[in-house]
Amino acid sequence: MAVFKKAGIVGTGLIGGSIGLALRQKKLADEIVGTSRHDSSLIRARRMGAIDRGSRDLRILSGCDIVILAAPVQTILAQAGRIQKLIPQNCIVMDVASTKAAVVKKAGASLKRFVGCHPLAGSEKQGIAHARPDLFKNAACIITPVKQTDTTALEAVRRLWVRLGAQPRMMGPAAHDRALAYASHLPHAIAFALLESIPAAYLADSPQSLRDMTRIAGSGHEVWNDIFMTNRADLTDAIDAFMQSIKAFRSALSRGDTHSLRRIMARARSKKQRIIP
Amino acid sequence: MAVFKKAGIVGTGLIGGSIGLALRQKKLADEIVGTSRHDSSLIRARRMGAIDRGSRDLRILSGCDIVILAAPVQTILAQAGRIQKLIPQNCIVMDVASTKAAVVKKAGASLKRFVGCHPLAGSEKQGIAHARPDLFKNAACIITPVKQTDTTALEAVRRLWVRLGAQPRMMGPAAHDRALAYASHLPHAIAFALLESIPAAYLADSPQSLRDMTRIAGSGHEVWNDIFMTNRADLTDAIDAFMQSIKAFRSALSRGDTHSLRRIMARARSKKQRIIP
Repeated sequence: MAVFKKAGIVGTGLIGGSIGLALRQKKLADEIVGTSRHDSSLIRARRMGAIDRGSRDLRILSGCDIVILAAPVQTILAQAGRIQKLIPQNCIVMDVASTKAAVVKKAGASLKRFVGCHPLAGSEKQGIAHARPDLFKNAACIITPVKQTDTTALEAVRRLWVRLGAQPRMMGPAAHDRALAYASHLPHAIAFALLESIPAAYLADSPQSLRDMTRIAGSGHEVWNDIFMTNRADLTDAIDAFMQSIKAFRSALSRGDTHSLRRIMARARSKKQRIIP
Repeated sequence: MAVFKKAGIVGTGLIGGSIGLALRQKKLADEIVGTSRHDSSLIRARRMGAIDRGSRDLRILSGCDIVILAAPVQTILAQAGRIQKLIPQNCIVMDVASTKAAVVKKAGASLKRFVGCHPLAGSEKQGIAHARPDLFKNAACIITPVKQTDTTALEAVRRLWVRLGAQPRMMGPAAHDRALAYASHLPHAIAFALLESIPAAYLADSPQSLRDMTRIAGSGHEVWNDIFMTNRADLTDAIDAFMQSIKAFRSALSRGDTHSLRRIMARARSKKQRIIP
């Protein structure tokens, strides 16, 4: 017997589509419906088996016992109120957005059994075409409960992520947004700014370093605009901290201070060992 | 018949060792000797077959008809004068350093048949242990001749790179250093500064974006200190250009200017398409 009778996916892109495929593969839902602003995405999601039925109309969500919000953050914020009116009171709702404080506040206010989530499984390769059922295998997934979070819904969502292969852990929404401002949103801002600053003529012979540093500059504008705009204060702080660091580097460089340059490199290298074994 | 009778490699690390392995594999030299400041590197290079004989003493280079300078830039600058006294007048000398103006000026003054080269095949994985004969396969290799460059030596070096599998192209040393300041040295400076600015606690859940952006922060300190120090003016300019871009991003972010953020992202994305198809 499946865990859910009717699962609804709002936003059948890379993440939403992959959840659909994984629900199907692991037989976790009797029926999977999807909604998107793009017919093409719904058609492809149905062909791939990520959903059984799709519609641009949110009313397709009626009767769901679980709804996954996988649209860009500001779309989630705009739709939460409407969705609340369409689904049963006891329907579990989770989102997968990359920023959490705004979504948890807004969706938590309108949706009774809402649980905020952020699987660290995104990619610059967006869209249903790149969806795959094993996208979450071994991926970290941050769940961001607050005081008013329904504990049964929280446990159901945690178990769902484990079933999808992810490694869930809990963190408050504000702490999440601050950590991710540094670990994810800042690197993205830098990738965009780095490309902006390099004259096009110098891109002819691109070393691997530049390719790696700018991979994420191919990321979707809407998704990233929404992430930036819903984490402005933390990201501004992170950019300021980074600007201090690059200024210190520039200053050591311009005064020919080998000792300071080596110290900066040594500290960076030892920190790097914490993230890449 | 081999192209060279005795090839000498100064600095048996990743690049020098890979050249030795490739010369051996393609039977381009009757004898290959190596020199390094580290006995361990020479022992390993001999075991791997990158050299026949090794010594910390530069006099092992006597009688070479080709010498490859593959030490960190400032070591090359310090050794060029001594090497000139040890090798035959007509010995071809090439280097593989990542900055070219200082090396070409210094080595070109002391070494009669010097040709500056920069194969774009480096890695954060340094040392002879990572050397492999196909390191240069399909790699771009920038050769930086100047007016006084010996044309026979230049053609011999160009052909050697083709034999090693690389795709050589010519560029002036100053133009090279300016382009690479933006395309390579700036990304490295950013990777170091980025890690410097992220609190260690936030590295626990590192998304792929951060891993990619900081891979090169594992690069060798001596090599990179030398690169930075021999390209100070261009790299300072590149950092300044980048700081303007990140400031513009921060400013758009802090005033909530979605339109400007999207324009920055769109420009970056279209530039990225020039480097990563």
